[in-house]
Amino acid sequence: MNLSGIIGYPVTPFNQESGALDFEKLGLVIDKLLVSKVDAIAALGSAGEAAYLNQTEWEQVAKYTVKHVAGRVPVVIGIAELTTEQAIERAKYAHLVGADVVMVSPLSYYKLSEAEIYQHYKSISHASPLPIMIYNNPATCGVDMTPQFMLKIVAEIGNACMIKESSGDIQRMHKIFTLSNAKVPFFNGCNHLALEALNAGASGWCTAAPCLIDEQPKRLFDAVQSGKQEEAKALFYQQYSFLEFIVNTGLAAAVKTGLAFQGLPVGHPRKPLLPLTEALETQLKGLLTELNSLS
Amino acid sequence: MNLSGIIGYPVTPFNQESGALDFEKLGLVIDKLLVSKVDAIAALGSAGEAAYLNQTEWEQVAKYTVKHVAGRVPVVIGIAELTTEQAIERAKYAHLVGADVVMVSPLSYYKLSEAEIYQHYKSISHASPLPIMIYNNPATCGVDMTPQFMLKIVAEIGNACMIKESSGDIQRMHKIFTLSNAKVPFFNGCNHLALEALNAGASGWCTAAPCLIDEQPKRLFDAVQSGKQEEAKALFYQQYSFLEFIVNTGLAAAVKTGLAFQGLPVGHPRKPLLPLTEALETQLKGLLTELNSLS
Amino acid sequence: MNLSGIIGYPVTPFNQESGALDFEKLGLVIDKLLVSKVDAIAALGSAGEAAYLNQTEWEQVAKYTVKHVAGRVPVVIGIAELTTEQAIERAKYAHLVGADVVMVSPLSYYKLSEAEIYQHYKSISHASPLPIMIYNNPATCGVDMTPQFMLKIVAEIGNACMIKESSGDIQRMHKIFTLSNAKVPFFNGCNHLALEALNAGASGWCTAAPCLIDEQPKRLFDAVQSGKQEEAKALFYQQYSFLEFIVNTGLAAAVKTGLAFQGLPVGHPRKPLLPLTEALETQLKGLLTELNSLS
Amino acid sequence: MNLSGIIGYPVTPFNQESGALDFEKLGLVIDKLLVSKVDAIAALGSAGEAAYLNQTEWEQVAKYTVKHVAGRVPVVIGIAELTTEQAIERAKYAHLVGADVVMVSPLSYYKLSEAEIYQHYKSISHASPLPIMIYNNPATCGVDMTPQFMLKIVAEIGNACMIKESSGDIQRMHKIFTLSNAKVPFFNGCNHLALEALNAGASGWCTAAPCLIDEQPKRLFDAVQSGKQEEAKALFYQQYSFLEFIVNTGLAAAVKTGLAFQGLPVGHPRKPLLPLTEALETQLKGLLTELNSLS
Repeated sequence: MNLSGIIGYPVTPFNQESGALDFEKLGLVIDKLLVSKVDAIAALGSAGEAAYLNQTEWEQVAKYTVKHVAGRVPVVIGIAELTTEQAIERAKYAHLVGADVVMVSPLSYYKLSEAEIYQHYKSISHASPLPIMIYNNPATCGVDMTPQFMLKIVAEIGNACMIKESSGDIQRMHKIFTLSNAKVPFFNGCNHLALEALNAGASGWCTAAPCLIDEQPKRLFDAVQSGKQEEAKALFYQQYSFLEFIVNTGLAAAVKTGLAFQGLPVGHPRKPLLPLTEALETQLKGLLTELNSLS
Repeated sequence: MNLSGIIGYPVTPFNQESGALDFEKLGLVIDKLLVSKVDAIAALGSAGEAAYLNQTEWEQVAKYTVKHVAGRVPVVIGIAELTTEQAIERAKYAHLVGADVVMVSPLSYYKLSEAEIYQHYKSISHASPLPIMIYNNPATCGVDMTPQFMLKIVAEIGNACMIKESSGDIQRMHKIFTLSNAKVPFFNGCNHLALEALNAGASGWCTAAPCLIDEQPKRLFDAVQSGKQEEAKALFYQQYSFLEFIVNTGLAAAVKTGLAFQGLPVGHPRKPLLPLTEALETQLKGLLTELNSLS
Repeated sequence: MNLSGIIGYPVTPFNQESGALDFEKLGLVIDKLLVSKVDAIAALGSAGEAAYLNQTEWEQVAKYTVKHVAGRVPVVIGIAELTTEQAIERAKYAHLVGADVVMVSPLSYYKLSEAEIYQHYKSISHASPLPIMIYNNPATCGVDMTPQFMLKIVAEIGNACMIKESSGDIQRMHKIFTLSNAKVPFFNGCNHLALEALNAGASGWCTAAPCLIDEQPKRLFDAVQSGKQEEAKALFYQQYSFLEFIVNTGLAAAVKTGLAFQGLPVGHPRKPLLPLTEALETQLKGLLTELNSLS
Repeated sequence: MNLSGIIGYPVTPFNQESGALDFEKLGLVIDKLLVSKVDAIAALGSAGEAAYLNQTEWEQVAKYTVKHVAGRVPVVIGIAELTTEQAIERAKYAHLVGADVVMVSPLSYYKLSEAEIYQHYKSISHASPLPIMIYNNPATCGVDMTPQFMLKIVAEIGNACMIKESSGDIQRMHKIFTLSNAKVPFFNGCNHLALEALNAGASGWCTAAPCLIDEQPKRLFDAVQSGKQEEAKALFYQQYSFLEFIVNTGLAAAVKTGLAFQGLPVGHPRKPLLPLTEALETQLKGLLTELNSLS
């Protein structure tokens, strides 16, 4: 599994009235990401409101995504479950339906020790042959894993082979890079840190932004890859306020509102999440217009 | 509903081999709490590993608890769900089986705004006639509600009528007391803050400690109530290291280990939670021996 | 040296025009504290703007305070210097002029290690025979010493014999109490934590509040000492909003404004500190009227 | 005043026995920085232990530095004083002796409001004609100024014209860049953030590193300036562990130890600061050997 570039995160569309999953729309969102030249599709991440789906829905989204992508790019499936048993079940299912990678985050209610997290990953690695992307997102998952600890997991646990870092602290990426002698691939999960992460050696950028701003993230990635530093900086600052906006207002709510502006209504996020306020809607419209993503 | 005193939190026993719920043991734990003179039973809180039960198990525990308590004291049912829809379902079920109070905490994946949390409580209040205890526990639930905001909920949302504060910051209790003119009952959810909370006007103390140290929490409560300050202080410091221990090592793991010491094995906590390490087991044994809860 | 009760903190009066020290007014402030039944006077603490005095001024205030108190109660002199050499000089001077205790806080520019802080205290203990009160105030001094570390200093460094805790975390006091078997006296330095601290075993309360609200802090101390818990609670909540106000708006600015209301103008705090805004002045006036400290 | 590139920070040498300033050694350190191709010299910053000098010493270092640099590069003088009066005095002195820029940080004992900080800068701007670099270093100075607030100062206060950001948060630099439309020059003050800061548009890098690793910081700056991204990344990661080391162990102690290794003993830092422990000395020796700065 050789993952790199832009890992695109679809939102999960719901029927506006019934609140049920809307697979046709999910297909359209995935296609929009592929047109935006993402290098992989990651379903059931934060942007996908995985936390707010029940088990059946979760499985349906996983299955549909793999089928719809149909091998055009690799498919990553996010798993953030409170119990190890549940996480194992999801990992097996992801394998069953043909996903390429599982992106696994511990999810805390009680504060988890490193021993507990370690075993969580080990159990998942035993249960499914899929490569595991270790996912550190303290803000949503309540667990903050150090670079040292994640590298230990990569070194010791069979399928664990890459890291997604979303703490927002660039020093974590410096640490992963230096401590692993640049050998362990890591991905940026903090949108408004994209320039720094890519310059610091990240293999890719996990983002829902291409749902709304098309190829612009890919262009930023390419500029860094090809050593066009001034261009990369310019592209980053063009997108910066937009990237900061979708992080600060919540990815699901922001991206869903933006898609509706662009003629692809995908319903609201699930409660307790609320749609953007009118003031924020207006701000988003302005940002998208500036980025030529709205005419 | 007039709740006060010691609100006892049973752990949720699992069969050591199968991992399934063990209702007989749950009955014994509840009885142990009642013998320890708790003034109410609160099932499905943190100590009860509610976060690690599936929906069927959750409902079975709620139903069994009400039936087993059989009106001897009020029954509180904890609800900490990621979606509002799920929380509503649980609140309805709690009412259906005859619980007296629901203790509701928002649970975050995405960071929640006050508007989102407000609506969460409002929806639950509409869905069930049960009195709502607003529960603030930032460490486990990832949401920190200010006293001002919680008092606004109490003022504006019908069934919301009391507060459980578990942030560990005594100033929050001072604020609730002064801003509400001592009118809104609040409960302490931070074990090693019990002396301060009760002296500051808390109506009660929510705790799993009586699972292991019998009437000692109740005696502390009574000493404060009857103005025996020196006795209260002495009782508190006797229990202090134990209270701090069960908070720091995780309530479920600590209480389950302690119950096994006392001849009531109730299985391990669910993974990713691990049982106490041997060193911590020894420490707990020492603390319980000191408190005369082990012979 | 047997210190206990209310340790009163005078502000340092400046001439309104010239900004120079105003010793006559300082005498009046000290007398006001003594009339308010404080059990000791602590000059050159935070409230005394010690950080904003030059060395000569500092020495003059120390000398004047001891002379003016004239043995009526013990005198504590605060020392919070960036270099050890400077702190030693101040400690020697405090002894020279007849102070009874030095209250010593490390002050950080660079983050200090425990080894550095330890040596700081050791050097001061060697340089002066005065008893040392270890003072932990992370918010102003940028150093946070754990209870364990401060107790180690008390155990190992000759003159170090008591602790003032101003972190605002009541758990620190529980730790000092339990780890020292109630043997090391500790004082509360966080005004709106007074009730909890005294109930938890604090020997006294370090406060500038009696500058403005007379005997009310002393009455609270006495109520706790004599086991009148309900009275203590009532007295605390009476003062609570005032205590919180002077902490949040800055002790020097708040107390100086209040003294002017009460007919004892003592000038403004030194810049960059600013006097209270008009809105805050009005709020303070309201709080003092409620407490019958303004007619 | 057009400042850019590497702003080099000399340490302040003390005589090993007497502890007095050693100007000859200071001259050698400055010369070492100039040989390392720094674009400016900044005396009396954190690395220079300005916080631990008395007023006379401070003035002597300022005067000597300007005289010794003798116009070869611009001289920046750091000012971080507790009172506005003292800061004004220092700014006047810096101008008097011929410095080119003052780098001004508020320094907190009491928590300072934005109004207080604003007036601090305004007063200094009135008192001296020198350009002011606003310096944000929350870890040492206890004050954290937002990009918005610092840009307001630049917009409204005459001499304030550039920013040094040392919070370590790259998002602050993104904000300064975007909110000022790339018009307000900002400098990086966090050594191990150098790559990100320069890529994000920083005009320069304030660092004591060239005291020990010669032209390597300058080479990194040049690589970014000339768009050689892969080279910049390689140079940064070469220096990374060293940069992190000197930040974490304290600039003064680390740099002074390293200079002694290189045959330029400049005494120890002032107490309470302690020299590096032996283990850290060994680590530093290793890092310098790797960087070819020790033979």
